[in-house]
Amino acid sequence: MKKFEEKTIKTEKIYDGKVVHLQVDEVTLPNGKTAKRELIKHPGAVAVIPITKDNKIVFVKQYRKPLEKSILEIPAGKLEVGEEPIVTAKRELEEETGYSTSELSFVTSFYTSPGFADELMYIYITDQLEPLKGTVTGDDDEFIEVVELTLDEAKQYVEEERIHDAKTNYAVLYLHALGRV
Amino acid sequence: MKKFEEKTIKTEKIYDGKVVHLQVDEVTLPNGKTAKRELIKHPGAVAVIPITKDNKIVFVKQYRKPLEKSILEIPAGKLEVGEEPIVTAKRELEEETGYSTSELSFVTSFYTSPGFADELMYIYITDQLEPLKGTVTGDDDEFIEVVELTLDEAKQYVEEERIHDAKTNYAVLYLHALGRV
Repeated sequence: MKKFEEKTIKTEKIYDGKVVHLQVDEVTLPNGKTAKRELIKHPGAVAVIPITKDNKIVFVKQYRKPLEKSILEIPAGKLEVGEEPIVTAKRELEEETGYSTSELSFVTSFYTSPGFADELMYIYITDQLEPLKGTVTGDDDEFIEVVELTLDEAKQYVEEERIHDAKTNYAVLYLHALGRV
Repeated sequence: MKKFEEKTIKTEKIYDGKVVHLQVDEVTLPNGKTAKRELIKHPGAVAVIPITKDNKIVFVKQYRKPLEKSILEIPAGKLEVGEEPIVTAKRELEEETGYSTSELSFVTSFYTSPGFADELMYIYITDQLEPLKGTVTGDDDEFIEVVELTLDEAKQYVEEERIHDAKTNYAVLYLHALGRV
């Protein structure tokens, strides 16, 4: 048995949504007691750090309903069932920024909120961007604006909390650590 | 009106849990159409990067039910209503690691999953740790193990995905960028 493992006694499905699936599990703790665990099931997500030929980072500005405000994020999207993360990453980059790429390097992956959600985020980077012909389409209910910033500008945006989410703060710190843009 | 703002027409509360509060909002989009937004309301959280006097990073190993496995994380916890994040940070550090501190410096804050949740994570750092007398208590339903690693060991753990969550991956990258442990 894995250390501190919590064995599931009962699973109650609460909600089955488009993005979020909520269930409450009753578990046996290592001390024999029981507890309830509220779990968000999420398909996982990908994000891309896109660097232009003139060393700018491509962000998308998007209204985020949970925050009731817009923030600048690196392009990202949910995984489709059975899809390889790198395939999702290429598609989201094209749909959201109007750039395509044939080269994506894996940077890291992490769980965004392991206390209550199983969302796993994969992050890629590319400096091989080609402008797509035609207009950016995006999803039907996504309204986004593309913003290109230097690394110094991006650091300032982090200070001002105009960049303010885990994957994008990570991306800015990663480029800073890399010392290459 | 804020750019691309989504105006709420209707809010349906789905679940009111201990950690997770789920609601579904119907919103008007900038193009006049309507859409549904699934929103997790979360009280927010804090995390601490604790550095010992011999330059080790203090992690806690904890079983995470949503992932069905244990991972190593920096100590963290949920905000109590009306509590200053720095107060929560000190308490969680003490409860989870058995170290206390009178000095915490703010590192950054970020939304963990802005697409579906409003969880805001505050991160602090300290290299002023004092061992607490007595045993670590923690919460009733938390079973944790304290693990101290050098930065090189921590980087290896990231590679092996034994460290695998947003705040902790960020913390390891932050210390790497700082070049100080």
